[in-house]
Amino acid sequence: MTTNDTRIEVDPNLPTLRIIRDFDAPPDRVFRAWTDPDLVRRWLGPRETEMRIEQWDGRTGGGYRYAAWRDGEELARFFGSFHEVRPNERLVQTFTWEGAPDGVSLDTMVFEDLGDGRTRVTSTSVVESIEIRDMIVSSGMDKGVIEGYEKLDELLKAG
Amino acid sequence: MTTNDTRIEVDPNLPTLRIIRDFDAPPDRVFRAWTDPDLVRRWLGPRETEMRIEQWDGRTGGGYRYAAWRDGEELARFFGSFHEVRPNERLVQTFTWEGAPDGVSLDTMVFEDLGDGRTRVTSTSVVESIEIRDMIVSSGMDKGVIEGYEKLDELLKAG
Repeated sequence: MTTNDTRIEVDPNLPTLRIIRDFDAPPDRVFRAWTDPDLVRRWLGPRETEMRIEQWDGRTGGGYRYAAWRDGEELARFFGSFHEVRPNERLVQTFTWEGAPDGVSLDTMVFEDLGDGRTRVTSTSVVESIEIRDMIVSSGMDKGVIEGYEKLDELLKAG
Repeated sequence: MTTNDTRIEVDPNLPTLRIIRDFDAPPDRVFRAWTDPDLVRRWLGPRETEMRIEQWDGRTGGGYRYAAWRDGEELARFFGSFHEVRPNERLVQTFTWEGAPDGVSLDTMVFEDLGDGRTRVTSTSVVESIEIRDMIVSSGMDKGVIEGYEKLDELLKAG
């Protein structure tokens, strides 16, 4: 049971999407959960889907590719690149759903040390147009984000 | 001597920058000039600088790093990742000047076949805020873009 809320903010005037979430673990552990594929696959995405990571080179200038599966069926595929992996501080990566490969987002995750073993992650996504941003928001991504972060709470709690 | 103008467009309401330029060569040759490091280093950037490519993995999920030198002195360093390399059609990459590493841009180059051995390249950059976009515009990048494209004209003509 978590008491940490996930805030999703949409700027009406910019093609950006911001997600703010606190975690009950220090920055190094939260950061590792974003960059180590064995951890990422255990929390990323909605509860009922399984993430199968096909490629993951989690360092500055590397790339990744994964698929979401449910009930033995592939639902969606995603890929991107790691622009910068700045340990325990900042992670900048690109992201595309293969179903709309021209709608690329640039995602920046900032890991802020709140003290007392807590970390705030502010994730900012920017795309080329407000229309693309609105498509992402209306895709139901909020369910995946919220459930994924709850799974991450559990993973961090389990140690 | 080129007769192809470089158009640089700034949207007042979006954190984007668009550069449109035609080249007198077919898409495959223009695309290769963007992805083959031996060609890139011969045209990228202003005339008086020399580009030293330190890393270049020009494929989807790869990364790059280069430095600009003048008169034996390093002026600036840049790095980024290749989100997608879609041959002869589309190139999506990230870009950062190391002097302001948090101001990352997502750059999409679309290669359009104009027929008669000509190609239009539309380059769209998006960043997180209009302030960052305005900093990029006021950095004097236009000189580098225009001179670089003139060098690319010469390279394509020679080649």
